[in-house]
Amino acid sequence: MSKNETITPRGEDYAQWYQDIVAAAGLAEHAPVRGLMVIKPYGYAIWENIQKVLDGQFKATGTANAYFPLLMPESYLKKEAKHIEGFAPEVAVVTHAGGKKLDEPLVIRPTSEAIVNEVFARWIQSYRDLPLNINQWANVIRWELRPRLFLRSTEFLWQEGHTAHASSEEARAKAQEMLELYAKFAREYLAMATVTGEKSESEKFAGAETTFTVEAYMQDGKALQAGTSHFLGQNFAKAFGVKYLDGQGKEQYVWQTSWGVSTRLIGALVMAHSDDKGLVLPPRIAPVQVIIVPVSSDTGIVEQAEKVAETLTKSDVRVEVDKRDERPGPKFFEWEKKGVPLRIEIGPREVHDGELTLARRDTGNKSTAKTDDIAPAVKKILDDIQHSLLTASLHRMKEGTSEADDWPTLTLAIKKGFVEGGWCGNESCEEKVKSELKGSIRCITTGGKKYAKCAVCGIPAKFTVIYARAY
Amino acid sequence: MSKNETITPRGEDYAQWYQDIVAAAGLAEHAPVRGLMVIKPYGYAIWENIQKVLDGQFKATGTANAYFPLLMPESYLKKEAKHIEGFAPEVAVVTHAGGKKLDEPLVIRPTSEAIVNEVFARWIQSYRDLPLNINQWANVIRWELRPRLFLRSTEFLWQEGHTAHASSEEARAKAQEMLELYAKFAREYLAMATVTGEKSESEKFAGAETTFTVEAYMQDGKALQAGTSHFLGQNFAKAFGVKYLDGQGKEQYVWQTSWGVSTRLIGALVMAHSDDKGLVLPPRIAPVQVIIVPVSSDTGIVEQAEKVAETLTKSDVRVEVDKRDERPGPKFFEWEKKGVPLRIEIGPREVHDGELTLARRDTGNKSTAKTDDIAPAVKKILDDIQHSLLTASLHRMKEGTSEADDWPTLTLAIKKGFVEGGWCGNESCEEKVKSELKGSIRCITTGGKKYAKCAVCGIPAKFTVIYARAY
Repeated sequence: MSKNETITPRGEDYAQWYQDIVAAAGLAEHAPVRGLMVIKPYGYAIWENIQKVLDGQFKATGTANAYFPLLMPESYLKKEAKHIEGFAPEVAVVTHAGGKKLDEPLVIRPTSEAIVNEVFARWIQSYRDLPLNINQWANVIRWELRPRLFLRSTEFLWQEGHTAHASSEEARAKAQEMLELYAKFAREYLAMATVTGEKSESEKFAGAETTFTVEAYMQDGKALQAGTSHFLGQNFAKAFGVKYLDGQGKEQYVWQTSWGVSTRLIGALVMAHSDDKGLVLPPRIAPVQVIIVPVSSDTGIVEQAEKVAETLTKSDVRVEVDKRDERPGPKFFEWEKKGVPLRIEIGPREVHDGELTLARRDTGNKSTAKTDDIAPAVKKILDDIQHSLLTASLHRMKEGTSEADDWPTLTLAIKKGFVEGGWCGNESCEEKVKSELKGSIRCITTGGKKYAKCAVCGIPAKFTVIYARAY
Repeated sequence: MSKNETITPRGEDYAQWYQDIVAAAGLAEHAPVRGLMVIKPYGYAIWENIQKVLDGQFKATGTANAYFPLLMPESYLKKEAKHIEGFAPEVAVVTHAGGKKLDEPLVIRPTSEAIVNEVFARWIQSYRDLPLNINQWANVIRWELRPRLFLRSTEFLWQEGHTAHASSEEARAKAQEMLELYAKFAREYLAMATVTGEKSESEKFAGAETTFTVEAYMQDGKALQAGTSHFLGQNFAKAFGVKYLDGQGKEQYVWQTSWGVSTRLIGALVMAHSDDKGLVLPPRIAPVQVIIVPVSSDTGIVEQAEKVAETLTKSDVRVEVDKRDERPGPKFFEWEKKGVPLRIEIGPREVHDGELTLARRDTGNKSTAKTDDIAPAVKKILDDIQHSLLTASLHRMKEGTSEADDWPTLTLAIKKGFVEGGWCGNESCEEKVKSELKGSIRCITTGGKKYAKCAVCGIPAKFTVIYARAY
């Protein structure tokens, strides 16, 4: 076993544990250029599953995919004042191409609002062209000073939705619709507990009126921003002249949204469910849901393994047979590290008895099922694993969330997990949480409990927020 | 109708006709940075269909997807001498990032052999790790001096397969397998006539031992390189130290291939089938296979249109109902320009008679089908259109291919289409075809007719080749 495959226990060093899981499960590795990554086949297969589900859901909401260019003139980013302020420190700049120095430097997209709006200004003429719902699956570059695989990588893969609407209300509703879609996806597919809400002024997207966010609860009590949806108002519309003629023939600026999730979700998955033995994956997103390990290369055993695999494939279970010339022990160990939800061992006894042993990755529990009845038995267990992982994640978030009415309580509580409390709305309090507690306001929640006082300064609270440390 | 929507007849100006089709069908448009493009939703939907089919076929050959970084140190490209010689004039260079000048400039991948092999050197240790079959779907940048949408764009989307094998024979066979896969895909899905063969020394991929190519026949008699598959030998393996321990514990360099097709295929599709009225798409790759146009907004008519659409959707036909508030004439015109294979009009008579009129895009022919029997009738016509387009393309290539035994014949024939003839194998003759005839040797064919003399210089021929002008 190479050193890459040793997994540091969570309790010992959480950050190292994360890196070890990513390496041991074969998800990704560092590229030669610092901050960039190579997504390995197993990690990419998770991304493909995420893409497939989300792409179908986007299309069901009337979104069409398109593709916008990687490079744009540096001047484009500058058209929306806050946008450039936010992104300038992170962009990569192309100054030479085709053997020559360029007249104007080009930037690699850190996000595509600028280029998309230059295009939307041509595509949108009349109210008949609205709403316009476009998404793209693409790579972006944001120069990272402290890169971490998946969590903060200089290049990442993502989807970015861009929509234009005739009214402010419709655009705001779209931003909220996509936020709900992300939260539902996190819950139903990634089995991940999340809190949703609005970002504070200082944390919102550069150029947005309102940023809605999905904050996922990680095992160490930290938050991970798992997806954002922005109500852009008319900021980009005005900067790029995106106008339409309304029903009365009057020129109006459009109202817009943008929303995205990225390969960061793979990092979230790792931290939400995995244990000291390796990755744990929710069945609905796992590239391999069932691994069948024949305990020897005996023909009858291998044939039986393949027959079971065929039966499961017909029932739409993603299954593989590990026929490599290797002892069962190391195979079990490897698939455990890769987080395959269910393992089926097949030996002479199983062939003889017509009964199979099913070992769950999440609990380690074993059960048996008749070979003739294997598909429904497997599906039932996979559903149960999916459900258990979500329940565990929800439980963890519930147990890990406390309340704070004052600074001493907040100071202690933020070390353990999410903290719900009041906020006066002043940036100085937010700044104090950052500088003194190494935490932040993750989101402003609505519809929940109201707090009388700001947990930082004690003056009357305007908002209920989640304070936490974050990735 | 905006000026973008006028289509110049092919006979008048073929290049302008191509641009007009791309604009009128809503496939793509120029980005602000010269040479880059915006792929519009309808064009991107064609790409998604191409991706879906090819991705499934790659996976069926045991290929897994992964993702390699966009940026690599400039020095990487230089490790394989011929590779850098070929690509240096085309790369885009990042010199600044994160607000600072970089210590070493980074290049945006023009192709990923260099970075992939840096990674393969780590992934491959033993013969047990072979063969390694990896593919990535990605964007690349190659600075184009004479850009054209889809055909030659500075940024394009593609897939690039990279494989490593224990023997030269196995790698060569893989390169040929993928070439056949591309040719079959062109035939069965794109309905496109192609010739396959090897590139000459001067035309092969920078760093390859052998480049195999699929050359498609366009309506104006020119060739379009629609896909290439390279046998790389050990060139990159030696440059990057990609070695494995064989069964005897001896260190060996791997043998490799790489292969790719790109969004260029969309340009090929346009030029292979379209006419002066607009785009013509083969049903198997068309985003919308059937468009249903209700002739009025009368409730009974719209309901019937939706019922028919539902029936077709259940039979896996990609169908849309055009319910926009617009007269039928402009709708017919628009869908004709977009190349939707089949149109169904529904008016009061159709509702009353229980019979529908089906209008084919390729021939303009109309037929009728009972509403109750619509799905099989539609499927039969779609199959027939698919078959007809391929037959027409094959016929066009056959009629457009002539033979040449000498220079005067070649000179005349190359103006009309493909020319089969002998080649002595000397680069000077190849150069003469380029400089004097504005053509090139598209590929060296095997298994066909043998020619006694080089069509350029008259000395004994070593090879049978296809001479043609090309995109």
